[in-house]
Amino acid sequence: MRIALHHKGIDYDYRPIHLVKDGGEQRKDDYLSLNPKGEVPFFIDGELKLGQSMAILLYIEDRWSERPLFPKNAAEMAKCIQVCEIINSGIQPIQNLAVMHEVKRRYNLNDEEKVDWSRFWIQKGLDALEKVLGPLAGKFCLGNGLTAADLFLVPQVYNGKKFGVNFSGLPLISKINDSCLELESFKLADPSCQPDSP
Amino acid sequence: MRIALHHKGIDYDYRPIHLVKDGGEQRKDDYLSLNPKGEVPFFIDGELKLGQSMAILLYIEDRWSERPLFPKNAAEMAKCIQVCEIINSGIQPIQNLAVMHEVKRRYNLNDEEKVDWSRFWIQKGLDALEKVLGPLAGKFCLGNGLTAADLFLVPQVYNGKKFGVNFSGLPLISKINDSCLELESFKLADPSCQPDSP
Repeated sequence: MRIALHHKGIDYDYRPIHLVKDGGEQRKDDYLSLNPKGEVPFFIDGELKLGQSMAILLYIEDRWSERPLFPKNAAEMAKCIQVCEIINSGIQPIQNLAVMHEVKRRYNLNDEEKVDWSRFWIQKGLDALEKVLGPLAGKFCLGNGLTAADLFLVPQVYNGKKFGVNFSGLPLISKINDSCLELESFKLADPSCQPDSP
Repeated sequence: MRIALHHKGIDYDYRPIHLVKDGGEQRKDDYLSLNPKGEVPFFIDGELKLGQSMAILLYIEDRWSERPLFPKNAAEMAKCIQVCEIINSGIQPIQNLAVMHEVKRRYNLNDEEKVDWSRFWIQKGLDALEKVLGPLAGKFCLGNGLTAADLFLVPQVYNGKKFGVNFSGLPLISKINDSCLELESFKLADPSCQPDSP
């Protein structure tokens, strides 16, 4: 979401929500009253208070149409959303911090076993995505223009690397990730560049 | 997705993919060559081959605009997608058959422990969704008109009931579910009405 805002040159206030500190700021009453789902990102534009990455990205596209991140053609738009969702709904939710925490707590895992859970789902998801991207990808997920699909891919690759996913069978994904990381909007949105980065 | 097609009166061929029989037809090579992610639903319209529920529903809305399932106003559209995604990305992926199978296999669970995993995530997700719906809901998730959000809600409630979720603190969700089940398009799409129903 940060990447989309940088890409479109939209000014925004960034309010960090630390997911680990003090048991997670996203679980505090203040934040839960705003977003009962207790997750990030969360986006506020005037009266509109919005959770869920896909909803936020589609809203940003509609509200600030310059430098589009979704294709105009209906079939291409559908494929773009498919790729977004393979990550946003097919990978990210099964490997996130809340699920890792719960799997560890329930089944008395050590940290390596906990990480193995997430690594397994990221590997499985990216292996399938690599095949889906075969007929679609160019420099980016959908041909040679940056789309929302790339915005979902890069943070997932970042997590995959952190958790030891094997990228040797993922040449397309690796190449697209490299192409993205050369872009200014991705550099500005990198976790290490945020004001709350440790 | 079946509900959307019935709602809009679109003729379609239904090809059942049995998720349990023979270890799951979605894992067979024939299906994987079509959809490497090995999941349902999958939608074919001419040259377009499309996975991921959200992508399919948005495409159907664009292609067959009669009897709309998404609001026209940008902020309402965003809230609608937020509600869809709380289920589609926030609940469904963590409690589905593939994850249940893996959690059971990895941690040597019995069937009741396996179901408890899914029950936990559905309960947590629906509890949060009930709060999100507070200022939004009428007869349906977003006021008094049926939207895509209801199409995601009903199958998730169906699974919740199957897995023993406690609905006593979920009056809004229960009422919306009842409203939906009175509609012809939901009756026609009920799992028990499909040609492959056991």
